[in-house]
Amino acid sequence: MINIALLGFGVVGSGTAEVLTENKALIERRLGCEYNIKYILDLREFPNSPFADVIVHDFDTILNDKEVTVVAEMMGGSHPAYDFTKACLLAGKNVVTSNKEVVSTFGVELCRLARENGVRYLFEASVGGGIPIIRPLINDLSSNKINKISGILNGTTNYILTSMRDNGASFADALKTAQQLGYAEANPSADVDGIDAARKIVILAALASGKLIDPKTIYTEGITKITLEETALAQLFGYTIKLIGHTEIGENGLVAMVSPRMVTSSNPLCRIDDVFNGVLVDANMVGEVMFYGPGAGKLPTASAVVADIIDIIANRDADPKPIVWEQAECGDLGDFSEYACRRMFIFNGTDIPAGMPEGTAKVHGSMCALVTAEAISEKQTAELVKTLGDKLASVYRVL
Amino acid sequence: MINIALLGFGVVGSGTAEVLTENKALIERRLGCEYNIKYILDLREFPNSPFADVIVHDFDTILNDKEVTVVAEMMGGSHPAYDFTKACLLAGKNVVTSNKEVVSTFGVELCRLARENGVRYLFEASVGGGIPIIRPLINDLSSNKINKISGILNGTTNYILTSMRDNGASFADALKTAQQLGYAEANPSADVDGIDAARKIVILAALASGKLIDPKTIYTEGITKITLEETALAQLFGYTIKLIGHTEIGENGLVAMVSPRMVTSSNPLCRIDDVFNGVLVDANMVGEVMFYGPGAGKLPTASAVVADIIDIIANRDADPKPIVWEQAECGDLGDFSEYACRRMFIFNGTDIPAGMPEGTAKVHGSMCALVTAEAISEKQTAELVKTLGDKLASVYRVL
Repeated sequence: MINIALLGFGVVGSGTAEVLTENKALIERRLGCEYNIKYILDLREFPNSPFADVIVHDFDTILNDKEVTVVAEMMGGSHPAYDFTKACLLAGKNVVTSNKEVVSTFGVELCRLARENGVRYLFEASVGGGIPIIRPLINDLSSNKINKISGILNGTTNYILTSMRDNGASFADALKTAQQLGYAEANPSADVDGIDAARKIVILAALASGKLIDPKTIYTEGITKITLEETALAQLFGYTIKLIGHTEIGENGLVAMVSPRMVTSSNPLCRIDDVFNGVLVDANMVGEVMFYGPGAGKLPTASAVVADIIDIIANRDADPKPIVWEQAECGDLGDFSEYACRRMFIFNGTDIPAGMPEGTAKVHGSMCALVTAEAISEKQTAELVKTLGDKLASVYRVL
Repeated sequence: MINIALLGFGVVGSGTAEVLTENKALIERRLGCEYNIKYILDLREFPNSPFADVIVHDFDTILNDKEVTVVAEMMGGSHPAYDFTKACLLAGKNVVTSNKEVVSTFGVELCRLARENGVRYLFEASVGGGIPIIRPLINDLSSNKINKISGILNGTTNYILTSMRDNGASFADALKTAQQLGYAEANPSADVDGIDAARKIVILAALASGKLIDPKTIYTEGITKITLEETALAQLFGYTIKLIGHTEIGENGLVAMVSPRMVTSSNPLCRIDDVFNGVLVDANMVGEVMFYGPGAGKLPTASAVVADIIDIIANRDADPKPIVWEQAECGDLGDFSEYACRRMFIFNGTDIPAGMPEGTAKVHGSMCALVTAEAISEKQTAELVKTLGDKLASVYRVL
């Protein structure tokens, strides 16, 4: 009998309890052993829940119970989630989590503690919700050097952008609808400012490179400034605006960033709409593969948490395969100002200003846009932005 | 040092040698151990190949060398691939393969032999080429009951169908181009008649259900009869015709089939074009997830073969997690005549005949089509087909 403890009984925590209960017979048959949810830690009481009798309020109850060998942390936020995770690993308990904030901030230390204590720290649910992406990157693409990863990593912003494109809703209106539907928080900053996507792309970048970048240090631009005119101009070119987390592992180092991009119709991310997520991986042998599915939500995210729990139980007698990450240092990072891609410049007025690079131009209403034929660097772009002054409305990276 | 033998030095075999060589430093670092391609079995000589000195012509050289612990079978066809695989497993050697014919026909026995001999038989490359699908189904969706799988599983036919839709090429012309580009064999039957897709869908169905169906017994319809009029009618409805392998694990048993389908624009498989493959999995907790990528080709397929080799080497000291399949028997199978989905009936003439189920009708040139509002069974469809006689041009399942 394997005893499991859940930390947090919110959306993902209650979903995890549900998956472990609903699919218990099937999972136990696959595992060839039985399991039990021994504790659920939460500050609240849940008198009417079927799990009422396993709710505890004191973390030490779990920490000190040697029978508990697998802990699923689904509290969100850095503290006390990080502190509890560390304590569990030090106590020789395996930990799985959906908490991207903890993984992206403390992943190096927590993976090291897992190794040192002969246990595992798994986080499939931290990126892409229910989409299998972490384990496939580690196991299935192990024969490849990963060159690039681009992802629609945040369902809330993708819902808003889809609504702006398809319903002509403004950002503010689309956000309001998303909040009414429960897709966006009352304080939507982590989503709409790209912070959530930044945490996820640094986790993917670390899986590809072994180097974890502090998510607070990467270029991060959200979707709050996107206008309906820009959405319409995107469509004129056959593009669609998506919030993209992007990382490249080049000869000159690792770069990672989050920003809205003009996604061309030939890119498979172009058609991923609403709250769905997609992760496109470019690897040196397989080429491009994409993983698509529900990037958030109670049961999808719980499905990934439970997959990690199953992985730990199934391999409990094997030597844990360690994840080895190092904190990215200056020498590991590429020069962001040299990062180059094609760009769309959007202008106030219907004339393309003189001195722009070659490209394709189109007019929409009182605005026009130019998509450069060649990739140009961040540095070149910044110089053009400075020169253009008020003539320029905005500039987008193209994917 | 791990010694590997490759059986077959054709497209996938030479690709596997290339991946193992090109990414050797990276893979050995990930594995923490060294490997060596000790033998490559082929009937031919390759005097100019960098692998010339490891080419052997006698399988017994490999079988009798106790140093060889991992064998990658990439010969294609049932014999001698099956016989060599069996001999290797019985000799305590791990085997990986890209051979869907062998896995779909002899998978039950070969998985059993692997278990009995304490070794592993892995076949990630047998479905979807380089797309990670087998291992994610086993590991990442382990917390789920799989309800349905639908896949574009054959790149050749998908190339032909894309060319018919986008270039207005007839089936015969599109096939000719595919052959010129090397996407289709001189004898294209295995692809265009759906035989290859049938092998792949029974492998996916077995991973989802534990029951392997003989691929020769499932309903299998190819793409040879699809006309440009039908392609145009599909587009009128916003659909696109794709060759779909489909399996459902319902209360009444397992069904699997291959046929062209009208794929609706809301289905993520709709936009998978050219030689790409996609596999859409519907599971009870995660909902729908899709895996997309190159379904064939030298390096992508080799990438999956090498991922299996790495899996075996990385876990060589662990107890192998066995795959347990049973041959599907009558009692395991659902009644195909009860299989229900929406259908598109295409008629000669511009009038919808009397007595048809309710639905949406559209006219194109001298033909018309009706898409039923409700799902109707194979049995009901067969009765309608009989009644309609010459009025009916064709009928398609809708996805």
